[in-house]
Amino acid sequence: MDEPVTVSIERSHPEVDSRIRFLLQPTRSGWVEQAIANLDTILLDHSHCERKAASAALNLMFRYPSSAKLVRMLTAIAREELEHFEQVNGWLDKRGISLAPLNAPPYGGKLKAQVRRQEPERMLDFLLVCGLIEARSHERLGLLGQYCPEPELAAFYRGLMASEARHYGIYWVLADTYFERPVVNARLTALAAVESEILSSLHPEPRIHS
Amino acid sequence: MDEPVTVSIERSHPEVDSRIRFLLQPTRSGWVEQAIANLDTILLDHSHCERKAASAALNLMFRYPSSAKLVRMLTAIAREELEHFEQVNGWLDKRGISLAPLNAPPYGGKLKAQVRRQEPERMLDFLLVCGLIEARSHERLGLLGQYCPEPELAAFYRGLMASEARHYGIYWVLADTYFERPVVNARLTALAAVESEILSSLHPEPRIHS
Repeated sequence: MDEPVTVSIERSHPEVDSRIRFLLQPTRSGWVEQAIANLDTILLDHSHCERKAASAALNLMFRYPSSAKLVRMLTAIAREELEHFEQVNGWLDKRGISLAPLNAPPYGGKLKAQVRRQEPERMLDFLLVCGLIEARSHERLGLLGQYCPEPELAAFYRGLMASEARHYGIYWVLADTYFERPVVNARLTALAAVESEILSSLHPEPRIHS
Repeated sequence: MDEPVTVSIERSHPEVDSRIRFLLQPTRSGWVEQAIANLDTILLDHSHCERKAASAALNLMFRYPSSAKLVRMLTAIAREELEHFEQVNGWLDKRGISLAPLNAPPYGGKLKAQVRRQEPERMLDFLLVCGLIEARSHERLGLLGQYCPEPELAAFYRGLMASEARHYGIYWVLADTYFERPVVNARLTALAAVESEILSSLHPEPRIHS
């Protein structure tokens, strides 16, 4: 049985409209079972995810260096992702897991393929894709915090959840800063449908976004 | 007159062999005059430099994700560069300078062109090129700290110098970790010669690395 799993998604940023639904479909139980059975691999993949999230924020800052609010908010995100990256690497150390490359699941590539090539659509799409990835990470770290059988590791995952929620809130605020709200909402709905569709079949290799 | 300018370069990392000379030639006075006459542009370029330095560290971590010491040390550098980026942007704010793109001087591109394509040479060259850029930044921020006519800004530059020195020390330590010392020293000497040659004629646009 691959039932949807419920997890409450707080939206901690005051500017975020509480009616915004980033995720169209919740994660199904098949992912949780796969993740819990492969905690070491999930932890290693999580380390890569934090580093990639820092890079994604920096890349956006490179692309839009004159957008002061974007630069300020994404600098804060990048710094926080690097802090989490160090923390996850501390967990890898503690468990004797060596840093190593891992094949990325198709998730990120398929989402990036949705980004339109022309500006200003490209900026909007990048912000919303980053927001969706953060929202899904937040949901899944929450599930790990709930179902991970190792109490200390579960507590670590719960500790990270609040930041991930703040991060997708920030991406939404930035989209809402530079674009009209109806345009943002329409595009978010479309991208969220793609995001849920990508995850509708479980990727065979255990990953945060499998 | 374009005289060499003297600035003391500390090497704060205990593992760094004090005989290592990163910079073959000191900056000449022409650069100092150009910079002092264009403090706002230099500050804006400095902001871009800090962001690029964070990206360079992250890119190296992406390329060598299994090298634990490299990942650990470069995470610390990337975090610190982002902190400096925020501080420099605070100065831009204070002076009413908008974030804006700036043409990069030829310096970075010419240095990157020296990086050999094959591993492991590529890794060595990347580490040493990053180290050279940090060493030159350290020297030039020191000159700004010495010659900038605005005392508060001069103090800010002096405050950044210690970190930049630590950064090029770290790049050297990493090169020395993954490669034999005579190989590191020979390649550093060759790259340092190129680096000084690139800067031997002043780029007409005022930049940290003009």
